[in-house]
Amino acid sequence: MPILQPIVNLAEMLFQKGITDVVVSPGSRSAPLTLAVARHGRLRVRVMADERAAGFVALGMAQQSGRTVAVICTSGSAVYNLAPAVVEAYFQDVPLLLLTADRPHEWLHQRDGQTIDQSGLFGTHVKRSYDLPADYTHADARWAIERSVNEAVNLSQLFPRGPVHVNVPLREPFYPNPDETFRYEQVRVVETLSASPQLSTDTWHQLQAEWERTDRKLIAVGQMPRDPELLSVLQQISDEWGVPVVGELISNLPRNGQFITRTDTFLSGITPDRAETMRPDLLLTFGGSFLTRNLKTFFRQYPSRQHWHVQPTVDRVVDPFQSLTRLIPGEPTAFLQKLFADLDYQHFLQGDDEDDSRTYLHHWQTADRQAARLVHQTISDSDSPLTDWTATQQVLDQLPTHSVLHLANSMPVRYANLCGIDERQQISVAANRGVSGIDGCLSTAVGAALATDQLVTLLIGDVAFFYDRNAFWSAPVPPNLRIVLLNNDSGHIFRMIDGPGRQPELETYFETPHGYTARNTAADAGIMYITCSTKAELASLLPDFFQPGDRATLLEITTDKRVNQSEFANYKQRLTSL
Amino acid sequence: MPILQPIVNLAEMLFQKGITDVVVSPGSRSAPLTLAVARHGRLRVRVMADERAAGFVALGMAQQSGRTVAVICTSGSAVYNLAPAVVEAYFQDVPLLLLTADRPHEWLHQRDGQTIDQSGLFGTHVKRSYDLPADYTHADARWAIERSVNEAVNLSQLFPRGPVHVNVPLREPFYPNPDETFRYEQVRVVETLSASPQLSTDTWHQLQAEWERTDRKLIAVGQMPRDPELLSVLQQISDEWGVPVVGELISNLPRNGQFITRTDTFLSGITPDRAETMRPDLLLTFGGSFLTRNLKTFFRQYPSRQHWHVQPTVDRVVDPFQSLTRLIPGEPTAFLQKLFADLDYQHFLQGDDEDDSRTYLHHWQTADRQAARLVHQTISDSDSPLTDWTATQQVLDQLPTHSVLHLANSMPVRYANLCGIDERQQISVAANRGVSGIDGCLSTAVGAALATDQLVTLLIGDVAFFYDRNAFWSAPVPPNLRIVLLNNDSGHIFRMIDGPGRQPELETYFETPHGYTARNTAADAGIMYITCSTKAELASLLPDFFQPGDRATLLEITTDKRVNQSEFANYKQRLTSL
Repeated sequence: MPILQPIVNLAEMLFQKGITDVVVSPGSRSAPLTLAVARHGRLRVRVMADERAAGFVALGMAQQSGRTVAVICTSGSAVYNLAPAVVEAYFQDVPLLLLTADRPHEWLHQRDGQTIDQSGLFGTHVKRSYDLPADYTHADARWAIERSVNEAVNLSQLFPRGPVHVNVPLREPFYPNPDETFRYEQVRVVETLSASPQLSTDTWHQLQAEWERTDRKLIAVGQMPRDPELLSVLQQISDEWGVPVVGELISNLPRNGQFITRTDTFLSGITPDRAETMRPDLLLTFGGSFLTRNLKTFFRQYPSRQHWHVQPTVDRVVDPFQSLTRLIPGEPTAFLQKLFADLDYQHFLQGDDEDDSRTYLHHWQTADRQAARLVHQTISDSDSPLTDWTATQQVLDQLPTHSVLHLANSMPVRYANLCGIDERQQISVAANRGVSGIDGCLSTAVGAALATDQLVTLLIGDVAFFYDRNAFWSAPVPPNLRIVLLNNDSGHIFRMIDGPGRQPELETYFETPHGYTARNTAADAGIMYITCSTKAELASLLPDFFQPGDRATLLEITTDKRVNQSEFANYKQRLTSL
Repeated sequence: MPILQPIVNLAEMLFQKGITDVVVSPGSRSAPLTLAVARHGRLRVRVMADERAAGFVALGMAQQSGRTVAVICTSGSAVYNLAPAVVEAYFQDVPLLLLTADRPHEWLHQRDGQTIDQSGLFGTHVKRSYDLPADYTHADARWAIERSVNEAVNLSQLFPRGPVHVNVPLREPFYPNPDETFRYEQVRVVETLSASPQLSTDTWHQLQAEWERTDRKLIAVGQMPRDPELLSVLQQISDEWGVPVVGELISNLPRNGQFITRTDTFLSGITPDRAETMRPDLLLTFGGSFLTRNLKTFFRQYPSRQHWHVQPTVDRVVDPFQSLTRLIPGEPTAFLQKLFADLDYQHFLQGDDEDDSRTYLHHWQTADRQAARLVHQTISDSDSPLTDWTATQQVLDQLPTHSVLHLANSMPVRYANLCGIDERQQISVAANRGVSGIDGCLSTAVGAALATDQLVTLLIGDVAFFYDRNAFWSAPVPPNLRIVLLNNDSGHIFRMIDGPGRQPELETYFETPHGYTARNTAADAGIMYITCSTKAELASLLPDFFQPGDRATLLEITTDKRVNQSEFANYKQRLTSL
């Protein structure tokens, strides 16, 4: 038996526990882990030299597939380079298994290389941290490895899904002899069943009674992956029962005339009178984070009397609107189906309830339609210049159906949310809204493109793009990736928001103009590169850009930050007329 | 008083406590900190968009100046991007003050953006972590801020110097009104005196008696900044008392015919008989980490009976040779001066002691000279091809006197150590040997060049270079920086060390060839770019390369990894004849 047989077996355990993909960064301490997964034969292994990018690539793969993706890195500061992706995964509920090679702990603080305090290094930003034994002579050590890995993979998948850390101290020798072949032994997998939370009949009756006797009910959906079954349930509820269903682009709630998706426009500077007509009595929420300040501020300033939140487990009180009154254990789709199946629809149709509901829904849908007109006037004027916003609208309108859209943080996700996406396009939308950093948006999109055959389009600004350009380095970029880079040569958001835009330090300390274009970055990475700076050019380029091909393509759209700013000011000016 | 007056005052405190330089990454939550230092007028503020690079730039500045450098970043994953530099600073004893903006803790886990668990985020890798109050209405809060910052700056400077974390929760509004001017109030600075550790006379007598009655004494120096006074004391001790003084390039021990600097060559595969003639009875060490496995293995396999380590504080047992017997509180130079001042030199000259010492020193110096000849034969053969090693030798030989040399991790620091540097060149050598990562070597050199008017030359491999290219982005590169990039298109070290070099997975999972050259990176950054691939070209380029100029210059030397490997194999073959 080779000295590191338990590490060889670990690869088989990953496979047995349903892991299909591993992202590896090169290292010598981690070589036993790398060789174990590389030689396994049934794991897809991708190599990324920069651990920060590797972490986000794994995040993108897991976000796209829903499966846990394993990440392997060597000891030392390499582990900390994973941390930005880990914390995003933690707050976005994305399942990762972090296998970090370590020196045996005896060597900590002994001035030896690449030795840091790795146990528990990710603090409270992993669901749990395991520290495997460094010696395998005692049978209990092998038992501990086996059950820890079982538990770690399970935990990554249990709600809320998230990253789990397995620290792996390894002793030399790391490398097998050239004539030594790996043998993957039979491993013990603890089969773990799942169950759905079931409310008692009494509880259901109570919920239904409260629902029925409350006048103005509203459903607001936080960030969620696209879920056609849920969408159809929501559509039916809103249509039949007159319940406004509110969400943002990251909720994967498309524009279909029914859902309320333009809150960022019509809740901006809403008058108290109007707000009161729109305030719900009962707010029902599920999903993750909300994107815009306008939406969050509305629900904080005009809190509902009751606020129910539905999610599979209820061990934490997450209360972003400062109004939560009830946590309900359940899966949103199942919960909605049961709640509305048991309500008395005939009674609803016969009483005043229907009229009241329709009136309330009407307030929201009218506001949404007004917002649509205002936005249309603002950006669809044929005389208006090319801006980040108009470019975003052109790109979204042309997205191939059934494709995937990634939205980088800072302005792109906000512009895209102002634009929205039509239901007929059937687009899945993803964005790193767990922590909302700009640090790994490009790598995340690369990971998504690796995990699907669909076209993945990333909309990204220049600071986020150059920050994360190591996403392209050291491994081929998947051909189904399309990057739309809005290059205004600055951290544009600082000009767009009120505070910094008025400071004399704006350019030097906030926007940090750099003069870069992506041409050289694309050339180095072997990516097709096209560029444009007018609406007409963009319109003519997009059809080809979205054609499938054998190479990733980057479309750099050059805009002027001052024009972006003045056009956005025009929009804000129009808002006052809403 | 503006609502954030204590934050405005914080900039004045930094200044009063002797901080002159601040590295800032853009952010909105951190804007009050940024504006406070930007408007202060007597702090030099540099802006870097990528926090990972920002952290290492600050590290390079502090390493070069010896002064604490402050780092400001915004909340969320930005903070984790500092962590690779923080852990390197911690293990390399470099003073940093990390000012991380945070949301008030009420918002943690509430699915709001850029909110993570920042208190104590760096774990055991900072000397201490402070969490400032978010509200300043109570006078105790302002008192806590004032004394915490006093203590934090002190701690960063006390031995062992290192990073200190001050987490700064901030409430809106972050931005002053346009008509509001900042007023820096008088702050209270706690003046903190320093003292040197003093051993008692009895203790000195005991140490001197043990030193005198022990036969074979050897001084080994770990990583240290260049210190001419210490070098002159060591030179004198070695010369007069026949004590071998052993060190590596990162110890800043130059080649002068007296110091023993070629251990990596002559301790490689040393025979047990010869090792016994070289084993010390008393080993005296000071400084930080040692570089090469050959040196560390020798002192572990042939431990001295006594091993004294001298450093200002003795609260930790750091024992990399597994032989430590005595920790002595003291400054190395003062300790050596006193120890040798009080020894009886006449008695030394008259007895057998001198002969024994000279014989012992002779063993080491002979081995060192043999190693010098062997290395010379290996790489100075005019028929030998250009390799990373020969290129390194050419570059080191031409370094301008009194300049600074930065050595990136992985192979460059090892090649440079094999070459060594002549004392007459008066070069200061720096390398990130705290954790020995490749992640920030370029940024660290940028930081060093910002903190000195001397020429700073960085020797770096291609993986470390591209990993950290954001060092060049978003701020001008200092004109006194010279980068020598050894581009062999791979993580070359994996081919050079035994284990991975023999695995079929070598290229795919370890070397990760990328095909990049630095031409585009240099063009984007506005850096002068030159390239060569022969020894003759290199020789002709170097004189101009090292001329002062108004732009940073990058010299890319293209080598073949297989030629590097075979030439290194020739060297190893020759070693058997030593």
